[in-house]
Amino acid sequence: MTTTPTPLTGVVPPVCTPLTPEREVDTASLIRLVDHLIEGGVDGLFVLGSSSEAAYLTDDQRRTVIETVVGHVGGQLPVLAGAIDMATPRVLDHVRSVTGAGADGVVVTAPFYTRTHPAEVARHFRLIAQRSPVPVFAYDLPASVHSKLPAELTLELAAEGVLAGLKDSSGDEGNFREVVLGARTRPEVSGFSVLTGAETTVDGALAMGADGVVPGLGNVDPAGYARLYRHCREGDWARARVEQERLCGLFGMVRVGDPGRMGGSSSALGAFKAALALRGVIACAATAEPQVPLSSGEVERVGKFLAGAGLL
Amino acid sequence: MTTTPTPLTGVVPPVCTPLTPEREVDTASLIRLVDHLIEGGVDGLFVLGSSSEAAYLTDDQRRTVIETVVGHVGGQLPVLAGAIDMATPRVLDHVRSVTGAGADGVVVTAPFYTRTHPAEVARHFRLIAQRSPVPVFAYDLPASVHSKLPAELTLELAAEGVLAGLKDSSGDEGNFREVVLGARTRPEVSGFSVLTGAETTVDGALAMGADGVVPGLGNVDPAGYARLYRHCREGDWARARVEQERLCGLFGMVRVGDPGRMGGSSSALGAFKAALALRGVIACAATAEPQVPLSSGEVERVGKFLAGAGLL
Amino acid sequence: MTTTPTPLTGVVPPVCTPLTPEREVDTASLIRLVDHLIEGGVDGLFVLGSSSEAAYLTDDQRRTVIETVVGHVGGQLPVLAGAIDMATPRVLDHVRSVTGAGADGVVVTAPFYTRTHPAEVARHFRLIAQRSPVPVFAYDLPASVHSKLPAELTLELAAEGVLAGLKDSSGDEGNFREVVLGARTRPEVSGFSVLTGAETTVDGALAMGADGVVPGLGNVDPAGYARLYRHCREGDWARARVEQERLCGLFGMVRVGDPGRMGGSSSALGAFKAALALRGVIACAATAEPQVPLSSGEVERVGKFLAGAGLL
Amino acid sequence: MTTTPTPLTGVVPPVCTPLTPEREVDTASLIRLVDHLIEGGVDGLFVLGSSSEAAYLTDDQRRTVIETVVGHVGGQLPVLAGAIDMATPRVLDHVRSVTGAGADGVVVTAPFYTRTHPAEVARHFRLIAQRSPVPVFAYDLPASVHSKLPAELTLELAAEGVLAGLKDSSGDEGNFREVVLGARTRPEVSGFSVLTGAETTVDGALAMGADGVVPGLGNVDPAGYARLYRHCREGDWARARVEQERLCGLFGMVRVGDPGRMGGSSSALGAFKAALALRGVIACAATAEPQVPLSSGEVERVGKFLAGAGLL
Repeated sequence: MTTTPTPLTGVVPPVCTPLTPEREVDTASLIRLVDHLIEGGVDGLFVLGSSSEAAYLTDDQRRTVIETVVGHVGGQLPVLAGAIDMATPRVLDHVRSVTGAGADGVVVTAPFYTRTHPAEVARHFRLIAQRSPVPVFAYDLPASVHSKLPAELTLELAAEGVLAGLKDSSGDEGNFREVVLGARTRPEVSGFSVLTGAETTVDGALAMGADGVVPGLGNVDPAGYARLYRHCREGDWARARVEQERLCGLFGMVRVGDPGRMGGSSSALGAFKAALALRGVIACAATAEPQVPLSSGEVERVGKFLAGAGLL
Repeated sequence: MTTTPTPLTGVVPPVCTPLTPEREVDTASLIRLVDHLIEGGVDGLFVLGSSSEAAYLTDDQRRTVIETVVGHVGGQLPVLAGAIDMATPRVLDHVRSVTGAGADGVVVTAPFYTRTHPAEVARHFRLIAQRSPVPVFAYDLPASVHSKLPAELTLELAAEGVLAGLKDSSGDEGNFREVVLGARTRPEVSGFSVLTGAETTVDGALAMGADGVVPGLGNVDPAGYARLYRHCREGDWARARVEQERLCGLFGMVRVGDPGRMGGSSSALGAFKAALALRGVIACAATAEPQVPLSSGEVERVGKFLAGAGLL
Repeated sequence: MTTTPTPLTGVVPPVCTPLTPEREVDTASLIRLVDHLIEGGVDGLFVLGSSSEAAYLTDDQRRTVIETVVGHVGGQLPVLAGAIDMATPRVLDHVRSVTGAGADGVVVTAPFYTRTHPAEVARHFRLIAQRSPVPVFAYDLPASVHSKLPAELTLELAAEGVLAGLKDSSGDEGNFREVVLGARTRPEVSGFSVLTGAETTVDGALAMGADGVVPGLGNVDPAGYARLYRHCREGDWARARVEQERLCGLFGMVRVGDPGRMGGSSSALGAFKAALALRGVIACAATAEPQVPLSSGEVERVGKFLAGAGLL
Repeated sequence: MTTTPTPLTGVVPPVCTPLTPEREVDTASLIRLVDHLIEGGVDGLFVLGSSSEAAYLTDDQRRTVIETVVGHVGGQLPVLAGAIDMATPRVLDHVRSVTGAGADGVVVTAPFYTRTHPAEVARHFRLIAQRSPVPVFAYDLPASVHSKLPAELTLELAAEGVLAGLKDSSGDEGNFREVVLGARTRPEVSGFSVLTGAETTVDGALAMGADGVVPGLGNVDPAGYARLYRHCREGDWARARVEQERLCGLFGMVRVGDPGRMGGSSSALGAFKAALALRGVIACAATAEPQVPLSSGEVERVGKFLAGAGLL
């Protein structure tokens, strides 16, 4: 276990979970993927998030993932872990499991499946923070949990010390900027880490004052995101924009899957894994069930996106 | 383990999960609740559904519930168990757990949290049915899973033998009737059980030809639902309507909770548990975290609903 | 102008708006359609609702429709008219227009397009009722207006005399029953008319105590709905169910349109108009722009639905 | 009538519609508001959009607005006008009306109220462009119309010459950037104007390559947005950020209204109008019915936002 920097900054990719053709966790590929990310220059790892297919992985598989990654990383950089489940008691079980395995921070959504009031969302985060031995990051993902974390609530929980950071995958840039500004200007909120999950607007988020980025596409091109982050930190916005636009082009791969045949997760996660297999990082591009696999033609198109971005 | 009748018919309440003040499963209260339901004349039990707070209960707590209920029932009547989780592999773990403990059938929703295509929903149910040792019932609950099971898909999966029945909590009566009519008229669909979860329109559903009802309010007044079911089966629609309207009045308790202070689950499940405590069936009305407890004034109003329905 | 009965009861179909191939109102066909409905035994007419394509018709076309229908009906039966628009001042303009032309009642939704609070919805209905010379019916259509009229608010506005009735196309039968029960049991709510828009559960709605039905499919088979209504009123639930199930079969036509090529309105309204053309009631099945026309194969399938229901 | 520059660039505020206490259009205040905007340095005007309360204004009031503004502006700068209505024929009536009065471009949403397929959305824009004498701008506003214009469709319609520009109020920055990149890199799309409606991320949008901004808050502080635009165009991102952050602070006024008492429109539009009244630009802060007025305490808080931004 390492100590998570305060605030956590930089590129913290949500680590894909390579699977065997039988859909067990492929730990050898997972280790190669972690090495690929570290060599790419990332600043931390986030396992068991949405891009890691946490919604599909069994508890045993989740445990294998966190143990494999923490064991391999050996404290070189912080490892955050998702504790994704429907409501407080189930989330706390995952918190216990991942922190027992050495996670440096936990990433938690608002309750889902249940019909929850904002006061209950706040209570959920407070109860989890009380009982978590490591910092708690809020994961704002309305597409999955069907509620939005308002900036005001995020900042209130930050000021209370309940939340150490935010991973914003809501796509609501106005609300995101409100959190960024609040985190910088309110004295009672210090060390709070504001991270965007939006792959194609990282330069904008960092220009606003965000601390870092959690890009799913960072699995495929970690070095690209590391460069993008560096250009932004150096204030070289022109080079940042060039790098970002290259990554925007690469990101087009998330739509290779035929929408008449599969959902958005199958297409996007299928493309990331196909790209990792094509780049030789992981052995097999299988995604968890009931996701639909990409066709060979769709995989070919992933290859063209890689080539177009100079990655093949 | 008993053999589930084909089709399953009658009143099959989703069994509340009594908790201690420390929010552990109160097995003594759970056993009293099961006895209360059986004495009320129900035809089956459904544990670990939404009304059972399955979204909140840890895996250990879920196991305690299914073992307690199956052990106590001893095959007197069928016990269905929810296997509520986000996607196929996690659901299959719950299927293994509850069937290992003796569940006679499993109740499964479409995937949630993930963005899923209808083809993936179908694949999900097919994979689960392949690997489940007991019949699979689809649980249609758009308010929680944010997708709707269309009648055509339900009937197709019924015809394939994938689904043994439907628990419809969608509130979409037109779609429900389409399933009822299909189940009666298509020769390839036989023995399929069409159950409504709508507490206040049971007479209408049974008049259409539905097989049974899974009423959350049946925890509070199982005898009322048993009478209602009997009147409908006997074609005594006038007495059915009187009984149903009494239950409609009682159902008003789900809104006792202040919507400015709590969500719909806190209010409805809080009211059912408060009613069970007031009736002396369970020891404590606590709901799982992060739900907000009813105030004493709100509990008093629950009592008035009980009195108004002749239950106190 | 006739006096709307209090409460309005029976079958009140939302009258389709026949168009010429150039998409002008075909008044000759409209008059034939009105005759077809009256001969079928309906109890009132509702023009300029959703099934009338009010969302597409220009103000001039709306005026032509109401003048044509009121002129032709000549007070034989009540004519309600939709005043469908985004917010209060625009709705009031339509109220003036349709009542100037002789409408016996107006049908009004909650505001849409704007983000509206429940208090503003209530205020909207109150302002309209103050300024309308005829009774106001609320049109509950969440699929279009993206908010739901809760039973409590509906009954409150009924008790104030703001609303004369409800046309419920929400598909929420529990809420509908609450309105029905409230309208019957609260002394301050009298003469309030509770009408369902759900074509396939009319027997159930009338068994609950609803006053009538506003079936889009009633354009195609008004006599069927008139028989269904009569059987229900006579308490002959067995014959009602047979008639209703025949109509359920016929209703399948709303899904003839290819969902990969057109939306739900194009398919359902296209099917109703194709059926009216096939039955010789209207001259042309065109729907308003930008709706997509049914293909000839799809129109053929509409014919099969008619034949299957004994209408060709 | 002036010729709209190709592409239209700069600050194009959606002009509020001042009302008298009796809620008629206050043309004297409207003229003062236009002068205030022009003196502030804006590049164009957009009347009859959402911030103009177009959803509330009657056709007569809409006509008064466009005639007043076009007449007063006298071709000094381009005037775009909303043609906001549910479906194609009704939208075309508004197109005729506003272009008859001299609008230089029309702004049109996807159909709403109806259930529309993407193919029908495309057909809608094509039909309108065929019949409009002036350029058509798409207005992407999912919060109001409940569908999202995908980048691919927007660019396809741009390439066909159907659309002259996009006013994006969707808050989806990833999709927005895709349009910006497509407009710059696809040779068949030229002169297409990509405008953001997001008040608090203008620097980011312009850094990406957007052409301009349509800020509701620009009514209150046009000079601020003009400065922000200039700093961005000059590549002075540091000063741009300071100006943008000042405007972010000012934007907080949109939430002064008590959410327990009113909707988001009442609060935001009420605040803009209160600010304009406090600044002496318009005579009365009334909003159209059924919106709820701000309390005096809420208006006082608007004043504090003005003071905090150096505007009082």
